[in-house]
Formats: sequence, structure tokens, C-alpha cells
Amino acid sequence: MQRYFGTKLVDNKFILNEDDLYHIKTVMRMKENDLIEVVYDKNEYICTLDNEYNALIKEKLTKKETKDKFITLIVPLLKEQKFDLILQKATELGVSSIIPVKMERSIIKLDNKDISKKIERWSKICKEASEQSKRVDIPEISKIHSINELKDMPGLNIICSTSEKSLNIKNFLQHTKNCDRINVVVGPEGGISPKEEELLVSLGFTRVSLGNRIMRVETVPLYILSIFNYEFME
Amino acid sequence: MQRYFGTKLVDNKFILNEDDLYHIKTVMRMKENDLIEVVYDKNEYICTLDNEYNALIKEKLTKKETKDKFITLIVPLLKEQKFDLILQKATELGVSSIIPVKMERSIIKLDNKDISKKIERWSKICKEASEQSKRVDIPEISKIHSINELKDMPGLNIICSTSEKSLNIKNFLQHTKNCDRINVVVGPEGGISPKEEELLVSLGFTRVSLGNRIMRVETVPLYILSIFNYEFME
Repeated sequence: MQRYFGTKLVDNKFILNEDDLYHIKTVMRMKENDLIEVVYDKNEYICTLDNEYNALIKEKLTKKETKDKFITLIVPLLKEQKFDLILQKATELGVSSIIPVKMERSIIKLDNKDISKKIERWSKICKEASEQSKRVDIPEISKIHSINELKDMPGLNIICSTSEKSLNIKNFLQHTKNCDRINVVVGPEGGISPKEEELLVSLGFTRVSLGNRIMRVETVPLYILSIFNYEFME
Repeated sequence: MQRYFGTKLVDNKFILNEDDLYHIKTVMRMKENDLIEVVYDKNEYICTLDNEYNALIKEKLTKKETKDKFITLIVPLLKEQKFDLILQKATELGVSSIIPVKMERSIIKLDNKDISKKIERWSKICKEASEQSKRVDIPEISKIHSINELKDMPGLNIICSTSEKSLNIKNFLQHTKNCDRINVVVGPEGGISPKEEELLVSLGFTRVSLGNRIMRVETVPLYILSIFNYEFME
């Protein structure tokens, strides 16, 4: 069943946003009384469409308990196609929050005026991926940070480093005490600069190697998020 | 340094293919005496370009010993964009061999006359990804198989199944004896049909769950290959 996030609850009916209405009417060609799933405030509902395409609650589903960790992906600005792929796949792989970060070797520079438009676009990609992968939440996208702003982050703080040769991610995760939150930094093409790595280390991040493979920048987030899923699988 | 696969060795010089010559001359704008890496017969060489853009051996690099497992990804025919992404990312993540397989719920059907052209195109994507990720080999792409032809495959045979609820990939891998080869089947949109799963089980494959996440078809191969890299990391 198709899933959408409700924007508002009025008289036992969820109001859907413009894009979702377009999807329901034009792409899915749904009609009155057709069933959809709606997520609202992290709860899941089975709803029927009324004649104005509002979603009338038919059944509230039992909340599933999840023990998912809160994973924050800290990722430099990249070319649109790569960044979009990361947003979509990271959402599928369960990321909780995404912090775009300015880095020396990132070739993408954004004007202040472009930023809010970008974040809106990125949020839309995450929302659609959340619907597709039946999540009850949408990863939050922060404003663009500088590295200095990554201080005092609670949880396990990791840098995916190409210069680290001795400590690999497997040893690191298997010798780490339980934690509820992980914050992981990945680099741009050309990598995180030594100065940036030092700064991150001074802010409490630990450099780990991901092994010997040479991957494109957009592959690294998918790789590390897959690893978290696997390592914390029960 | 840019890496290319040599096609032939003649008098201490490697001959490069047309596409690589175009890349060297037009994209990279390299000139006589510029240095490139060439891989030939799984050996790595540092070479200089001569005035006819042949690669003259300057130094043979010491062979690195790898203990990589031989991973075969068995994947249904998918829409071009998704399939291309899988080929590129699977190559980066170390896949050894790819077997396209016909499945009931795959919406892509290929004519016999299209197949050799497709395989040529797919091989090119894997070659370029191998160069980019500095591999010394290129994943081999087989002809299109039917499921019946997947019999007698040596190694660990796995189905990424959405119907399996009890045995997950983590339990499975951690309770498996060492093996040098893994053959892993992923499904199309809509999944592997129950009949196909039964057939695969009768051929010696084991159904495993990848956990609770709902992923797009093209994400699954990247997820499972990341897991293999992690589980077998030393």
C-alpha cells in the first residue's frame, strides 16, 4: 500500500501536501475510497480517500518498538547527482539526521540565498525515500555547518579516514561500548584535509579506516550505513 | 595517477584501447612522457606515454597479496539506470563476478540480439569502475542465466529473501565455516517469487533475511556487498 506523510490532522482526516496529492491523483490514479497508509507524528494509519482526497482514518496500526540507533551522517557538499543519491540511499538505510558540512576540498560552494531552497529540495528527496521504505520518520536535514560547529556532539564520533592505517571500523565498533547515537563524517573527492582531520580529532572524533577499497565519495556513506545496520542487527 | 587496463603487450609497451586513448588525449590532455598506471594480467606497472600513446614500462610494482573472497552477485535484469548503478558500485565494493538472471517478476526482457551488445556495455562500466577503484581485475559478466542454470555452484550460496523471517544474514555469516566463494542472489522489484525461491533452495541456496529495512532493488546489492567487506575485514 502506498505510504504518505500527513501534514495536518483535522476531524479524523489527514491533509496531504500538494506533491502527494499530485502523486495520488495523477501518478497512482487513485479514486474515492481507495486505501493508503498515512504516517503522522510517527504513528501509522490505514486511511481511505474521501471525495476531496483527504485521508480518513480507518485504523491506527500498533506502534512497532524499534531499537534503532540515532545515526547522523555528516557529509560535505557534493555535486547534485551524488548528493541526491546519498540522501535517497541513506534514508533507505536508516539514517536519522544529515548535516551538510563545508570542507576545504569540496568543490561545491553555496550562496546564502541558495541554501534554503536546497534544503527544501533535499528534504523532499528524504521524505519520498522515507515513504518508499515505509519509515515512520523523515531524516532531518540541518543547516550547512562548518567543522568547528561539530563540537559537543553526544555519542560515538567517527571520521571515515583514508589516512588512518591501523584502526579499522570493524575493530573500532567491536571494541566500543554500547551507544545510542553515532555521528559519522565522510569526506569529499580528494578527502578530508589533514588540518580538518586534526580539528575533528580535537573535537572528539576518532579516525577509522574503512579497509583497502577505493570508493567514490557517494559510495562511502552507503557502505558505512550498511555496516551499522549489520553490526547492530539483532 | 590515472589507471588503465592494457590490452596487449608488445616489446615492453602496452597497447591501450580506443576508449582509453580518447580519455588520455581528450579528457586528461596528457602528453608524451606523462606517467600512467597500467594493469596487465593482474600486475601493476608505472608507464610513460610515448609519442604514439603507447605505454612504455618504467617499473613493475610489487604484487600485493590479497585474501579477498570470490563473490558472485546474481542479479535480475533491471532498468538500465539501476543496473548500471549496481555494476559500478558492486565493482567498487569488490565483486568478482556478475551473473544476470531471468526472473519471473523482472519487467525487463531482452532479445537474443540485444544481449551481446548489453554485455559489452556492462563490461565497459565494470572496466571503468575497476580503473577508478584501482583494482587489478575486472568483474566478469556472464551470459544471462535461467535460475535452473545456477546449480552446482561451489561456495556459500545465499538468497537475499524478504520472506525469510528467522535467519538473518548476521547469524548466518557468523555461524558459517570459512569459505572462499560466496554466490548471492538478489531479487527484482516485487521480489523473487516463492516458486523461484524454492527452486533456488533445491539447488543448494539458503534464504537469509537482511533485516527489517525496506530498500529499493538497486540498494540491496550495495548493502550485501558492504556487509561482506565488513564481515571479512581483517
